[in-house]
Formats: sequence, C-alpha cells, structure tokens
Amino acid sequence: MASEAPIGIFDSGIGGLTVAHAVSLALPNERLHYFGDTAHMPYGDRSPELVKSWSLRIAEHLLDSGCKAIIIACNSASAAATSAVASAVGPSVPVIDVVNPVVSAVAKGSARRIGVIGTRATIGSGVYGRALSIAMEQEGSAGRIEEWPTPLLAPLIEEGWHDHALMEPVIQSYIDAAGWDLEGPDALEALIPGCTHYPLALSALERVLGKGVALIDGPSIVAQEVKARLDAVNLTAGPSGQEKKHRFAVSDLTASFARSAERFFGSDIDLQHDPLWG
Amino acid sequence: MASEAPIGIFDSGIGGLTVAHAVSLALPNERLHYFGDTAHMPYGDRSPELVKSWSLRIAEHLLDSGCKAIIIACNSASAAATSAVASAVGPSVPVIDVVNPVVSAVAKGSARRIGVIGTRATIGSGVYGRALSIAMEQEGSAGRIEEWPTPLLAPLIEEGWHDHALMEPVIQSYIDAAGWDLEGPDALEALIPGCTHYPLALSALERVLGKGVALIDGPSIVAQEVKARLDAVNLTAGPSGQEKKHRFAVSDLTASFARSAERFFGSDIDLQHDPLWG
Repeated sequence: MASEAPIGIFDSGIGGLTVAHAVSLALPNERLHYFGDTAHMPYGDRSPELVKSWSLRIAEHLLDSGCKAIIIACNSASAAATSAVASAVGPSVPVIDVVNPVVSAVAKGSARRIGVIGTRATIGSGVYGRALSIAMEQEGSAGRIEEWPTPLLAPLIEEGWHDHALMEPVIQSYIDAAGWDLEGPDALEALIPGCTHYPLALSALERVLGKGVALIDGPSIVAQEVKARLDAVNLTAGPSGQEKKHRFAVSDLTASFARSAERFFGSDIDLQHDPLWG
Repeated sequence: MASEAPIGIFDSGIGGLTVAHAVSLALPNERLHYFGDTAHMPYGDRSPELVKSWSLRIAEHLLDSGCKAIIIACNSASAAATSAVASAVGPSVPVIDVVNPVVSAVAKGSARRIGVIGTRATIGSGVYGRALSIAMEQEGSAGRIEEWPTPLLAPLIEEGWHDHALMEPVIQSYIDAAGWDLEGPDALEALIPGCTHYPLALSALERVLGKGVALIDGPSIVAQEVKARLDAVNLTAGPSGQEKKHRFAVSDLTASFARSAERFFGSDIDLQHDPLWG
C-alpha cells in the first residue's frame, strides 16, 4: 500500500466532517475519501447489527477505491463495528475509530469524574464506560463515568440550531435529567461529547457547563491518533507539490445536506452522490 | 381479492401508527399489516428518488403478504411515491395516501388562509400547495397556502418531548420564521400538521396557535377515506366474530422503537422485526 493513497473516512452522514476537518489540518499532505451514509442516517437510533453490516460494506467500498487506512468517524459505528471492520480489512490497513483514542487520552489526563453524552446507540452500547474503566485501571486509577443519551442534539445541530436560543435549555434539560452536578465536591470534571456532530455545539455546551468542566476535543485527539498510526507503518504521505484533492461522497444527496456539509467541514466542499446501496 | 384480507399500511417508522390507530377505530372489523421502515427513518430528510424506491419495495412486500389495499401513512412517501405505488399495484388494489384526502377535506371547508408544516421532504415537494390550489379551484374558490418545514418536531416527538416545556418555544420559533400571523385580518385560519408524528403534539400546537386556527385532524380524515374506498369496491370486511389480529413489523427493531410505538398507537402493541432489507 503506497503512502500516497488516500485515507478513507466514513460516518452515518455529514457529522464526521468535523473529524475529516481536524485530520486535514493535522495531516495537510493527506488526501481524504469521505463517505457519508446519508441514505441511512442517523445511525444513532439503529440496532448494532444493522450499523455493523452497513459499516462493513462501506469499509469494503473505501478499500476498493484504494484507501490505505480507514477512519470510522461516527461514535455509533465505532461502538458497533470497530473490531468487525478491523478484522475484515486485515492487519495491514490501519483502522482508527473515534472512541478508543479519546478514551486513552482521557485516561491519561487528570479528570476522574467524567460525563459522556451521545446518541442512544452509542450510550446504549456502554462502550465509553467500559473502555474508560479499563484504561484508567491500566493507568493505576479509577473514576466515576456516567453516560447519558442526548438524541436531540444531533438533529438540532443538523437544523443549524447549534447557536439558537433553545440549544442551551435543551442541553440543560439533559444535564438535569442525567443528575450531573456542575459545582461542588461531586461536580463533573470533564465531559466527552460522544458524537461527531457535537463539536459544532461547543459554545452552547461551554455556556451550560461553565468553566469547571473540561470539554474533550475528540476530533483533534483522533487526528493525532491517525498521524501516529500512519507514522508507525510508514504510510504517512509526503509533500507532493500538488494541491491535494479530497473527495466527499454521500449515499443520498439532497440540497439540505449540500448546504450543511460546509458548516461541518468548516470550509467549502463539493458533495458528490455515490449510490452505494443502489 | 377477499374482503377478509388485511389492509397494508406503511410509514418510514412508527409515526404512521397514528394513522393505523385512526383506521382501527373507524374500521373495527379490519385487520392491519403495518410496516415501519425504521432501518431507513426518517424519510423526511431523504431525496424523493430514494423514498420512491423504498416505498415501491414495501408496497410489493405488503401485497405479497396478501393485503387488499395499501395505505401510505407517511407524508414524505405520499408526496414522493403515491402515483408510482398506485401504478405498480394496479387498479384492483386501492392505494390511499395521507395527502390527497386531507387536501380534499380542507378544500371543501371554509378556511382559505392555510398553513402547512412538515418535514423538509414533504414541504420541499410542494405537494400540499399544488394540490390545495387545484382542489380549491375545483370548488370554485382560491386560497393562500403557505408551507413551512419544521424538521425538528418529529425528533422531539419521538424523544417523547411532545409535552415538554421546550416544545412550545420550538413551535413558536418555526411560526415566527414562517412569518405567520395568528391574529388580525391576515391570520391563519387552518393549519395542516403534515407529518404523521404531529398528532401527538396537538396540545402544544393548540397552545401556540390559539383558538382561532383550526388544526386539521389528518388521521381521522384518512380513515374515512379508507372506509369510502373499500366500500366502493366491496372490500370492506364484515364482522368475523373472532378477535382481529393486527400485525406490526419494523425493518430494524430497537428497545426504543418498541417503547415509543405504544405512544403512537395509543395502546399496547407487539412490534416484530421484519428484516426486509436483509
């Protein structure tokens, strides 16, 4: 596999573009092949079996297009399909999910009262709690990890409401329902926004949580992991002298996806239709 | 086709259960075969081509299971696929959608300043505006029909927030964005809740709209149309003496769907998994 090959990256829709953007900043020589499964979004409400079968098909599709590595840029797919995808693609293709790098980084940090928010599928899987407990134990410590589903945040962000006046009361309502203290001796020390949509709502999250709760920056952590994994197997692209061209494809294309893709990637992109499912 | 055969009814998910419930009340001798395409929900964000292809496959599946009629209990599918489904099943099988019966009923009424809310797919199709203009012209009148997409309402209702304190400000925010007057000479006279989820949010809609705006009761109108269409071709089921058994199937089954199905149908139901898409 040549280092000049593109990196494949997929998500249930366009939320994973926040991860693609972080990777494009951290690894400016890399080309990305992004696949958003907009025909099936959101994965966050589906059963793990279905998410796994779709993820396997998409990973195969990205390999067929010549990708040298796969980023699973969706928390629900990371929870349901990381090991299945890694087995399917074999040991020569790095597979990077969005849960494990964050778990490692958080376990190495000092926060021990940690909240996790995400879709019903991600939170229902319990993947963060399990992986964090193991990773903290390996660091010789223990923590209190509490996970809470916040399924309305992704639709609100997709609707462009991440800075709407109603975003904060919705977040507050979930924090109240989770029963999390934001002040006092039992206050949360860190929150993991466990969905690739949530980076767009960081300001609203910060306003509700206050300064005392560290917000974990998943996309940057994942981008650093991608860099480390490519370096480890000598697959990092060198400077090419040419402008690198990313490719952004979705399984269903509507005007609304095309409009909001830009918001998630942080700059202008050209979404193509790739009807993988016929 | 025997009158004892079941009626097939489908939706992108479980919202169509509001229509199934109305039909079960209006036609107590009928058996329903409900199919909710939860593997693909929500249809409201998809392209018309995709919604049409899924709808055709589901209609075929319902006919294969022996259904005598098809109800398209989803506004987005009604907008994208009614004529394609009707052509595909042929003239001997009544196909009833959820848009045309409502349009006919509203055109026969007195309201002429009419708002329509629904998903992006339904509103983007412009189906209500077009059909209402034609139907009113046939009644010898004209009206002002304004359509506005309200894509967050369905996720909020699915999350069980139809009576949450934040439901009213979200609705209000959409009414403001649509620029609709609720009082004065230009005030709306009627609102069509153009999504099968919305009947669950009638109280919140009423509180925001006030008493001056008539809320159209889509499911009851559709149920009456089903009755009329079956009567017209002598396919109405007679009393059987036995307890009729409805069948409720979904293409992806999660605990969360199973829990909320009851809320949409208004009574206890047993959701089965029917993996139509493999």
